[in-house]
Amino acid sequence: MQLLKEKIMDEGAVIDGNILKVDSFLNHQMDIQLFNAMGKEFKKRFKNKEINKIVTIESSGIGIACITAQYFDAPVVFAKKHVGANMSLHVYEAKVYSFTKKQYYTIKVSKEFIKSSDKILIIDDFLANGNAAKGLIEICNQGGAKVQGVGIAIEKGFQNGRKSIEALGVRVESLGIIEGFSEGKVIFK
Amino acid sequence: MQLLKEKIMDEGAVIDGNILKVDSFLNHQMDIQLFNAMGKEFKKRFKNKEINKIVTIESSGIGIACITAQYFDAPVVFAKKHVGANMSLHVYEAKVYSFTKKQYYTIKVSKEFIKSSDKILIIDDFLANGNAAKGLIEICNQGGAKVQGVGIAIEKGFQNGRKSIEALGVRVESLGIIEGFSEGKVIFK
Repeated sequence: MQLLKEKIMDEGAVIDGNILKVDSFLNHQMDIQLFNAMGKEFKKRFKNKEINKIVTIESSGIGIACITAQYFDAPVVFAKKHVGANMSLHVYEAKVYSFTKKQYYTIKVSKEFIKSSDKILIIDDFLANGNAAKGLIEICNQGGAKVQGVGIAIEKGFQNGRKSIEALGVRVESLGIIEGFSEGKVIFK
Repeated sequence: MQLLKEKIMDEGAVIDGNILKVDSFLNHQMDIQLFNAMGKEFKKRFKNKEINKIVTIESSGIGIACITAQYFDAPVVFAKKHVGANMSLHVYEAKVYSFTKKQYYTIKVSKEFIKSSDKILIIDDFLANGNAAKGLIEICNQGGAKVQGVGIAIEKGFQNGRKSIEALGVRVESLGIIEGFSEGKVIFK
């Protein structure tokens, strides 16, 4: 997706040789016009799929998921990493390994918000090793829902996230696929 | 706002006599059509105010803020409670006391995303004691920005949040104001 690529080239920064910082438009400050263009593009790519619910994970996925949901006329459910006092005790949960933090954390969704009749599109900002997306697929499967696809803003194409999701029979659509970094610059696929 | 009140009456649940659970449409599953109606209403209430940025706090404020931002043609910045590996070291921060968790936590926003030229609308899902909103105002003030108002989905009108924000000279607009709970039912103002 050209607009996203341009944003990454103009505003993205490569830190420590392998971290892509896109917090001016994607995951700290959020460019809502860009999100709308991304939502339209997700709709185009999944136009032949019946989708009645968007599932994402806090926090960076929520904004993209909400704007995208408008193009599918669907509600959004976000999986929680940090559970408050009023979280239902009846939850589907999955363990997710974080490579950044080098530890497992548990993500949770109340059982009432994943139904066996649901046709779900999973949305997230990044795909690298695919652990968050796999955790979300696992939760959807626990509820008997059908995962129709995974929509990603930025995929690190040199990591194995896509492969491990496709191995579960789930389609992946990423709007910007990065092949690697070279001298502080992003190389696109 | 009638639509929000109806949602609260139809789907809200009162737990332990004083916690309002609205996770079927506001802060776990999110009703995007409702959010659009809320965004329109915020625009109506702040139509005479110049606003170029929406500021909120993770996670429950993000969805409402992003949908609302479309009506102001503005980007959203969310304050972080949980800071990842690639957060800038140059941040504005504020300590916020959580009555639910009975402890202080620190919220952070990268300095580059709050400018002295910014005219900011703060958006959040709940207003009770007002500590989160006051923390966000403090961060905006640190950056020299002007806070044009605070827009809230559900205000607990029997707590002192509104009073403490108005004491800072900041206008508060809440779409649903709850006066109290009685026998498991919500009493509106």
